[in-house]
Amino acid sequence: MRKLCVIPGDGIGVDVTPVAVAALRILLPDLQVVEAQAGWGCFVEHGCAVPERTLELMRDCGAGLFGAVQSPAHAVPGYRSAILTLRQQLDLSVNLRPVRSWPGISPRPGVDLLILRENSEGLYIGREHMASPDQAIAERQISRQACETLAQRAAEVARQRRSKRITLVHKANVLPLTCGLFRDTCRAVLEEQGLGEQVDERLVDVAALQLVEQPQNFDLLVTTNLFGDILSDLASYWSGGLATAPSLNWGKGIALAEPVHGSAPDIAGSGRANPIAALLSAALLLRHHWQLEEEATCLESAVERFLNDAQGLDHGTQTTERVAQGVLTRLDLL
Amino acid sequence: MRKLCVIPGDGIGVDVTPVAVAALRILLPDLQVVEAQAGWGCFVEHGCAVPERTLELMRDCGAGLFGAVQSPAHAVPGYRSAILTLRQQLDLSVNLRPVRSWPGISPRPGVDLLILRENSEGLYIGREHMASPDQAIAERQISRQACETLAQRAAEVARQRRSKRITLVHKANVLPLTCGLFRDTCRAVLEEQGLGEQVDERLVDVAALQLVEQPQNFDLLVTTNLFGDILSDLASYWSGGLATAPSLNWGKGIALAEPVHGSAPDIAGSGRANPIAALLSAALLLRHHWQLEEEATCLESAVERFLNDAQGLDHGTQTTERVAQGVLTRLDLL
Ligand SMILES: CC(C)[C@H](C(=O)O)[C@@H](O)C(=O)O
Ligand SMILES: CC(C)[C@H](C(=O)O)[C@@H](O)C(=O)O
Repeated sequence: MRKLCVIPGDGIGVDVTPVAVAALRILLPDLQVVEAQAGWGCFVEHGCAVPERTLELMRDCGAGLFGAVQSPAHAVPGYRSAILTLRQQLDLSVNLRPVRSWPGISPRPGVDLLILRENSEGLYIGREHMASPDQAIAERQISRQACETLAQRAAEVARQRRSKRITLVHKANVLPLTCGLFRDTCRAVLEEQGLGEQVDERLVDVAALQLVEQPQNFDLLVTTNLFGDILSDLASYWSGGLATAPSLNWGKGIALAEPVHGSAPDIAGSGRANPIAALLSAALLLRHHWQLEEEATCLESAVERFLNDAQGLDHGTQTTERVAQGVLTRLDLL
Repeated sequence: MRKLCVIPGDGIGVDVTPVAVAALRILLPDLQVVEAQAGWGCFVEHGCAVPERTLELMRDCGAGLFGAVQSPAHAVPGYRSAILTLRQQLDLSVNLRPVRSWPGISPRPGVDLLILRENSEGLYIGREHMASPDQAIAERQISRQACETLAQRAAEVARQRRSKRITLVHKANVLPLTCGLFRDTCRAVLEEQGLGEQVDERLVDVAALQLVEQPQNFDLLVTTNLFGDILSDLASYWSGGLATAPSLNWGKGIALAEPVHGSAPDIAGSGRANPIAALLSAALLLRHHWQLEEEATCLESAVERFLNDAQGLDHGTQTTERVAQGVLTRLDLL
């Protein structure tokens, strides 16, 4: 029996996760759902952003759905963003971030790309120190093992998507050792997997510009942690912005779906949060973790038909409820 | 008497710098021009990407115009990009990168923003090592002094532009020490300078998306080295891409103008390189280094009227010569 650990987190995470859970329940009638705590609210209440119990539940379920997490405006001693702790503690070492055009809300049709972001190290390794009161140092760690895991996932996804192009994004002209290790390791794995012909490279600055100029020319992008963070936010423009940007934190035998948007405290609880990113994140769980391609496609197609019929989203009148209804009622066409 | 050190560098650098020099000679009839070597070609020929003589000439002139530099595809022992060495050795600690809409070539009107990029440290500090054969580490250095210099320049530029908004771009939710020091130091300086009201902040991922979604809402952006590299390339979309992206490497009493584009070896020498970025970089030298606002505006306005009259650039038939003629003949309207 499949199990799902739901972690609504802060703000609109509480509003959007139930919609994605409802969709999953329709597609997987015997899904067992448990709920767990994490986030800033949890930290304020219990002094801990990710309780041990949450990690246990996640490990037990193997699959999770995260809502959103609020970051305090300034560093708070002892607090680290809950999503970072979850990624690290659960070895969710790859982050999968697809971007595609949706009817009615995308600025242009024809975009269908996927960014595979390393999710465990780089500048996110969490090693910063003050070298003096006037100087701070952060370390960026790139290791062969993490790059190999990433590239293996990339090969898997590339085959699934029948990718014609796999673009390694780095800044090896300035960071020859770290970005060089990333590039050479990824290339070696992809060649080994018979995908060498499809591989090309872009410097991160050039990739950022080309993702704006010619997004339709990209297919699969593979990159390090912070570059993936920046590029996936920017690329989400083509899907209609963060409100439609899904992601999957992806480990071995464990995965945590996560809408890329934040907790939007200003609209939390107002009934106006858009659940589409959460729904599409659930679809990634279906496709990549549970290997249920048909169910994943069914969910994405329900979103697509809803957006098509609704002629996009009217941000003035749209409600969580209305979008939820619109998508959920289109799910039974399976 | 004003002196200019011209460093054509590699590839199309050799094609475009003479056009910018010609414009400067028209605007500053007694400009004294010397030429110096740097770049990959120079490294291949002399075993040194930036000869000592070049640094001497730059220091003597105080002002320079750089062309472009080629990076070898893979790390070459002993070679570091010439532009990085120039920035470091000459203490060009701030990089100024304006982006504005140009008639006929910009995807939309109304964009007029400026990115101030820290130019001396961050991940560009050049401290990388292998912690083991399977792990590479790069250091990201942020120091109070560099942030202060940056923020002081930001204050200067903000007053000149009458900026209503100064956006500090960072990733302090993941890098509280380095990005925190950057943010707090910049904020303190800007408040001290009476500009506190105008200051706001964005996380770098959000800034990347918003620079695509609503570029017209930005005015002055202030950020660290690599973030500035990525954001300025991406924002150049709004001016018509890298072919129109100028920059100024800016130190105390010394400045080096640099078109952001690369050396484009495929079209070097073909007479098809676009000199507009080089021309606009020369305008930055006029405005910010020599404090010649009128001459700077005259040059920018010549570019604008040329683009307006030409109804944009026809990439099929455009030649360096034609653009040069078009702009230079419009300069005498001073
Ligand atoms: C909340 C933040 C720590 C996180 C990140 O930087 O990875 C977010 O931006 C994301 O992309 O999931
Ligand atoms: C050539 C390269 C080292 C340089 C940089 O990364 O700064 C370039 O991209 C730029 O933006 O001037």
